[in-house]
Amino acid sequence: MGFETKSENKCFGGRQLVLSHDSAETKTAMELAVYLPPQADDGPVPVLWYLSGLTCTWENVTAKAGVQRWCAEHGLAFVAPDTSPRGEGVPDDPDGAYDFGLAAGFYVDATEEPFAANYRMYSYLTEELPGLLAAELPLDMDRQGITGHSMGGHGALTIGMRHPDRFRSLSAFAPIVAPSEVPWGHKALGGYLGEDRTAWAEHDATALVASRGWHGDILIDQGDADNFLAEQLRPELFEAACKAVGVPLTLRLQPGYDHSYYFISTFIGDHVAWHAERLRR
Amino acid sequence: MGFETKSENKCFGGRQLVLSHDSAETKTAMELAVYLPPQADDGPVPVLWYLSGLTCTWENVTAKAGVQRWCAEHGLAFVAPDTSPRGEGVPDDPDGAYDFGLAAGFYVDATEEPFAANYRMYSYLTEELPGLLAAELPLDMDRQGITGHSMGGHGALTIGMRHPDRFRSLSAFAPIVAPSEVPWGHKALGGYLGEDRTAWAEHDATALVASRGWHGDILIDQGDADNFLAEQLRPELFEAACKAVGVPLTLRLQPGYDHSYYFISTFIGDHVAWHAERLRR
Repeated sequence: MGFETKSENKCFGGRQLVLSHDSAETKTAMELAVYLPPQADDGPVPVLWYLSGLTCTWENVTAKAGVQRWCAEHGLAFVAPDTSPRGEGVPDDPDGAYDFGLAAGFYVDATEEPFAANYRMYSYLTEELPGLLAAELPLDMDRQGITGHSMGGHGALTIGMRHPDRFRSLSAFAPIVAPSEVPWGHKALGGYLGEDRTAWAEHDATALVASRGWHGDILIDQGDADNFLAEQLRPELFEAACKAVGVPLTLRLQPGYDHSYYFISTFIGDHVAWHAERLRR
Repeated sequence: MGFETKSENKCFGGRQLVLSHDSAETKTAMELAVYLPPQADDGPVPVLWYLSGLTCTWENVTAKAGVQRWCAEHGLAFVAPDTSPRGEGVPDDPDGAYDFGLAAGFYVDATEEPFAANYRMYSYLTEELPGLLAAELPLDMDRQGITGHSMGGHGALTIGMRHPDRFRSLSAFAPIVAPSEVPWGHKALGGYLGEDRTAWAEHDATALVASRGWHGDILIDQGDADNFLAEQLRPELFEAACKAVGVPLTLRLQPGYDHSYYFISTFIGDHVAWHAERLRR
């Protein structure tokens, strides 16, 4: 079954689409946004995935980042999925907290109840959605890059490093780099995967770069006025792990910038250009 | 009394501010957003006003247009006021419609009851707010331009043409150019100013350009897939009036674009550059 088009808006000469489909993985309807640059009218274009942070849907980055201007310039499609399953019957955090459950899927396949049935964001993003996108849209799936913000930076780094054959380029904005070491990660990985921490390592970027490395370089932007920097993000842990295994990391601490989309919009042009350079044939 | 700063975010090297103050004109608290580009650290910068459309606050253009990138490049401050008074006791459309009352002040001073006490957006924007901005922020009030979208395009054109001494440059996105001739305008000008249409002419851009002209050129972008084009916007009426009095109008019909911020974000860089050129010393 294919996509239903919920909306289409012309933007920078291309098409901003919002799509919906029934997911076999999450057993819910899932929405996502895809920007097709003008170059897609002439044939398949490379793909940049963007995974969003806690509380977000596809809409935040699509409306607030100004990313279409850069994707049109460089000829990249931009895919922005949702951050969790949603809808009637999908279990949420028992207290309705923002950092677990709805809009906080953490890009894993849950094994704990009652989340295991629906919270399958890892398989959704690595298996089901790429197949649908390849079948339905003019995308060159041999040229994919991935980025994301905060929880989505965690998703980008972990999914990217576990699929080096699929992703040529990898970057992140203010990512959670070591969920095994920070409160957001303890809650999410414990809640979805259980307290046996051996299962966590495959969803921890700092552990993954140590165990698997990465075939290319990595770009991370991080605001130094970000309220979450010291307790939840801790990029120095990832930096040390990259250094230990010789993975070239460019970690830019941006003075005065916070965790908001004003920060992302300022630097997303650099990230699109960086991915575009690595996705050229 | 000055501004209270509700939030501040670094963006493209400058400062995105959200400010609040008690307005003597509207007798309410009013919020607005101001972007100060990095150049404002070194002294007063020119000012581009942006008046928003129906249903909007300062937030739509501030979050969705990607305008900070262009204002940082050209060294312009960007002022985005609200679209009406708000709060307890402010009368709204009796049916709660989107096109009158809250978020639909139409940039006039109402003379009809029960709106006359609060709905004084014209005096607020032309007298009270400029005084506050000049006193509190590093703005060069001798170099001001004005633009806006839809209802805010109507506001920009009418306020601009009635204050040619104050505004050097004038543009609009999908503006209501002839409120006396279209349903939105009939409802708003009738509701705020009464049914004597002689009062309407000073708030009708097509009537104003005929009666007063304009000292410069005017830029208007309009999507040709805009659902409101034929019934509510009718730029051909303004185009004919400009032609009759010899005011140079560049009216760009943009193929495939609609009324959304995806349209505005695509072309706002052109408008910022256009104003910046006319606001140079």
